[in-house]
Amino acid sequence: MGEYMYKDFDYDESQQLYYKSHEDMCEFAVRSSINVAKKLRQLQAQRNPGGTEYWPTLFDEPDLWGLHLAGNPFNVMYMVVVDALKTQSTPEQYKEFGKRVERFEVTATYAQTELGHSSHLRGLETRADYDRDTDEFVLNTPSITAYKWWPGGLGQCSNHAIVMAQLYIDREHKGLHMFYVQVREEGTHEPRPGVHIGELGKKMGYLGVNNGFLGLKNVRIPRTRMLMRHAQVNRDGSYVKSPVDALTYFAMLSTRCIVTRNSAVALATAATIATRFSAVRRQSPIDDSLPEPQIMDHVTQQLKVFPEIATCLAYRLAYDYLRELFSATSRDIDHGNYNSLPELHSLSCALKVMSTSDCAAGIERLRLACGGLGYLASSNLSNIYVNTVAACTYEGENTVLLLQVGRFLMKSWYAALSGAPVAPTASYLAEVQQSPDFGLWTGSWSNLVRAMQFAAANKTRLAFKSLSRRIENGESERMASSHTGIGLTQAAQLHARAFVLHRFCAEVTGPKSRARSPALNRVLQQLLELYLVNVTLSSLGDVLRVVHLTDEDLNKLQARLEDALAKLRPDAVAIVDGFDFGDKQLNSTLGFHDGNMLERVFNAALKAPMNRKSVPKSFHEHLGPFMRSNI
Amino acid sequence: MGEYMYKDFDYDESQQLYYKSHEDMCEFAVRSSINVAKKLRQLQAQRNPGGTEYWPTLFDEPDLWGLHLAGNPFNVMYMVVVDALKTQSTPEQYKEFGKRVERFEVTATYAQTELGHSSHLRGLETRADYDRDTDEFVLNTPSITAYKWWPGGLGQCSNHAIVMAQLYIDREHKGLHMFYVQVREEGTHEPRPGVHIGELGKKMGYLGVNNGFLGLKNVRIPRTRMLMRHAQVNRDGSYVKSPVDALTYFAMLSTRCIVTRNSAVALATAATIATRFSAVRRQSPIDDSLPEPQIMDHVTQQLKVFPEIATCLAYRLAYDYLRELFSATSRDIDHGNYNSLPELHSLSCALKVMSTSDCAAGIERLRLACGGLGYLASSNLSNIYVNTVAACTYEGENTVLLLQVGRFLMKSWYAALSGAPVAPTASYLAEVQQSPDFGLWTGSWSNLVRAMQFAAANKTRLAFKSLSRRIENGESERMASSHTGIGLTQAAQLHARAFVLHRFCAEVTGPKSRARSPALNRVLQQLLELYLVNVTLSSLGDVLRVVHLTDEDLNKLQARLEDALAKLRPDAVAIVDGFDFGDKQLNSTLGFHDGNMLERVFNAALKAPMNRKSVPKSFHEHLGPFMRSNI
Repeated sequence: MGEYMYKDFDYDESQQLYYKSHEDMCEFAVRSSINVAKKLRQLQAQRNPGGTEYWPTLFDEPDLWGLHLAGNPFNVMYMVVVDALKTQSTPEQYKEFGKRVERFEVTATYAQTELGHSSHLRGLETRADYDRDTDEFVLNTPSITAYKWWPGGLGQCSNHAIVMAQLYIDREHKGLHMFYVQVREEGTHEPRPGVHIGELGKKMGYLGVNNGFLGLKNVRIPRTRMLMRHAQVNRDGSYVKSPVDALTYFAMLSTRCIVTRNSAVALATAATIATRFSAVRRQSPIDDSLPEPQIMDHVTQQLKVFPEIATCLAYRLAYDYLRELFSATSRDIDHGNYNSLPELHSLSCALKVMSTSDCAAGIERLRLACGGLGYLASSNLSNIYVNTVAACTYEGENTVLLLQVGRFLMKSWYAALSGAPVAPTASYLAEVQQSPDFGLWTGSWSNLVRAMQFAAANKTRLAFKSLSRRIENGESERMASSHTGIGLTQAAQLHARAFVLHRFCAEVTGPKSRARSPALNRVLQQLLELYLVNVTLSSLGDVLRVVHLTDEDLNKLQARLEDALAKLRPDAVAIVDGFDFGDKQLNSTLGFHDGNMLERVFNAALKAPMNRKSVPKSFHEHLGPFMRSNI
Repeated sequence: MGEYMYKDFDYDESQQLYYKSHEDMCEFAVRSSINVAKKLRQLQAQRNPGGTEYWPTLFDEPDLWGLHLAGNPFNVMYMVVVDALKTQSTPEQYKEFGKRVERFEVTATYAQTELGHSSHLRGLETRADYDRDTDEFVLNTPSITAYKWWPGGLGQCSNHAIVMAQLYIDREHKGLHMFYVQVREEGTHEPRPGVHIGELGKKMGYLGVNNGFLGLKNVRIPRTRMLMRHAQVNRDGSYVKSPVDALTYFAMLSTRCIVTRNSAVALATAATIATRFSAVRRQSPIDDSLPEPQIMDHVTQQLKVFPEIATCLAYRLAYDYLRELFSATSRDIDHGNYNSLPELHSLSCALKVMSTSDCAAGIERLRLACGGLGYLASSNLSNIYVNTVAACTYEGENTVLLLQVGRFLMKSWYAALSGAPVAPTASYLAEVQQSPDFGLWTGSWSNLVRAMQFAAANKTRLAFKSLSRRIENGESERMASSHTGIGLTQAAQLHARAFVLHRFCAEVTGPKSRARSPALNRVLQQLLELYLVNVTLSSLGDVLRVVHLTDEDLNKLQARLEDALAKLRPDAVAIVDGFDFGDKQLNSTLGFHDGNMLERVFNAALKAPMNRKSVPKSFHEHLGPFMRSNI
């Protein structure tokens, strides 16, 4: 598939992207995304007409990131809007307007966040008032803080939007609902009357996705444009409540899971680039009698690069568990069973937070590990960073999500204390309550996992204690919870760490290992060893609070770290080759599989557009006259 | 001065910068830097003709960063080249060509790093062969790895460069020397014969400084263009060696000190923006009965923002000490005394590394603390980040410098063991050797400083042990040192941390406190308390290896952290106001002192250039036809 999709990829044009003006970058993103859509649809038509495994499934898949260098302005349309229309509108509605989005006859985005309101959904100001006389909703964003803000593709591409708004019937508030609103004319693409729409300007990354703003002033839509699968407004203004509120938010949960996978993949691309760079770049002789070694021979470089290879694998394996839990929960929900929803919610939040923050930080460490060349746009590392770090903020700001995980831990701790059942991912809390003594430190893998669980349980215990004390002192539960914010987020982070360690260990040592080749098992075990030891050493402050380690134990851990790095050295390039990213997908002068790095960096520089002229415009207009005036 | 310099500052144009093409950004940088130069020279002429306190001293000062939004392509010329010419050329040479640079009649940059060689200076390939017949040097970059790479302003602006090259006389190698080479014609600005010059392309930051590359093919310069203050080549080809090699590197040391100050200032600008943002932005009710609070009331937000305020102060105070040590050492050198050079070198490296990595990471944390709005280019936070993080790589890559500090620590540890004198900044190592027991934990400020010193001494001891063991096992000293790289860098980091804590504590509690107002002392003490407790908690893994802390001690530290944050809450805005950055210097929609934030973000979006047209070009050319084809 990759080969087909990339076959007429214009590498030279992609290298010129960063030189363009903002407007031209946005135009590039629209054009290249439409090309991808066309080709995927051809592929689908050729290989399995009527199916969906190519189109739209692959539209925003990591394999195609090299084709969406400036971002995909229609990502939200196919990753969020189509799903939301499928799950939130009635079959008649979907037939009437959902299908049109699916066919790309119209373009749509999802407008929820407002300039003044994001994490606190109930604070959204946009309102939809039912007008019984005309059988319409009248939508308004009553102030600039109510302007919809951020939707991808809204600025230039979308002629429709799902607008999240407070429903009012006879001035009575009925809570948040989704409305399908036409914002631009079909045909001319001019904004509709009462619609104030535009692009919200240059951002750190996602350079071409024209994130937009939307103001609505008495914009009228038919009543049937409220998405009415779960809640309804009838012709007479009577209102039927949704049976389960949680269903409205289930779509967001699915997106959050994908963020975890994408963060892991992004880190894997950066690790591939940095590993290849480290194998080609030579620097700083270790022994004066020898030539400069590959920098990968420096232990300090190994410590920058190899742990990231392990980290992307760790999150990928954690994601696999999350995806299975998601599928199982979806099946349960179809049967009216919502029991595992809180755990799924908490785990998806915990992994979203830790994967985005660890992977973004890891990508930046890898970029720095490529020295000055990592600072060049042609390395693509800064682009990978700015796109990945955005996910720390979108789909639930990381601290806000950690606090939700913290609250899940408080409930779990309390449940365990009272002997009530605890969700599987938090069951270790009950175990620690029952036997609070860590026991013997052996340094085995399972012992390291256990140490992190004890550290997480300890922070959970401390946060629970602070919270309880505050409540006893008369604070409301909300207030006490807010004041315990630091303890809650710390507990949540350790909880997520312990989960990731546990899954990594279970995947490598568990029954699946029997189905793998001995060579693959050996590499996985080396990566596991590195990950466990490195994370433990990085979390030592928390670990030492629950486990007594002698100086000798600690020196052994440090020696294991250096040993694990040395053992990975011979296989590092092969491991990242095994990730199997195409050169065009990586799109980095530093990361081609052939190792031909410096020539590519050099040629990319020669092609910088300003080098077409021997003397720049700025000399004639500014510098030349100024220098002459000084003589 | 600021008012004068900014009085015709075009805020609207500065807001449009990020929308420009690369070529236009570079043109903007040349134009705006020349404007700054002109105005500073006017100021100098008006207020103190013949002096230098305005021009060129202030050319690249933080106060004027708002005027150099795309970077200053002539920064290297006035911050490095003029200094290098002054200290490395003879008085006759300086008169002949140094003065011309000073007067901006010509433009020059400093070309040292090569595409294939950076940290390992001795590996540079560019060579200068003396041709006795013509009394000239013949310069060559014999391969693409020898191309000079990175000099700021080289790509488009410079017609001269100081070129660092290997000197050869009769094919005999004489080591690295500096050569003053004309690379472009005066007048036409065309590249000179044999000179291959260009811009090296788009980078993550420093958007307009046209960093360049330079290839030389049999480029001939008069013998008198080698900078000959310390070493000389005579007409007959005889060579006079420099009396002290270290002098060649002293200029780099001075630049490294400035990096520390600039990192601290950059963090202070970001902290100002994020603090003001946190006081204006409202989000997530703590109590449902109350409106959404300022996010600065959330303890989790306080933990993101307030420690950075303390960090920039900590590095600023550490820099003050460094600057004094630099002055004292310069005076010593003038008297032929080089004794304190190793300590100055080590301290400048340690502070450069820690300030750049801590301040860059802090800026990015602050940017993330501003949520989605921090991702907008108009917040200026991403620009501050990408410019600051570059310093982790330039002027000595951070890991390479840490290894040098590590070697200084090994020497100091060995000296202390053998009873030899130890430099003042490392004297605690000798103290710990003499009384290795930490003694009583009191949690006082000096006790916290001492704990970090013990942690640093412990890592130094362990690294020394590993190093010695490797040498005993037959490894060469270089090889053993390389293999101990992880331990050495860790020791170096803790050594720097301990120094910064120590200086912060000494400045706040020392004799200078008597000259300050009680109100200022109170604020400084609160910041010190926060910094000490927060850094100790973040380094707990290292601290707990040398000090026994009970669970109760640790809970107290955590409580002190929360307490310190709460105490700073009422003063936070006033503290950053006290940094006294002008709105135009910050140039952030989120950071105006009047708190009028959302309106500015909104207006900046309205002014995004694509919003001038109601329908974008990409609709007519790509999206419209595609949608119609799907109907």
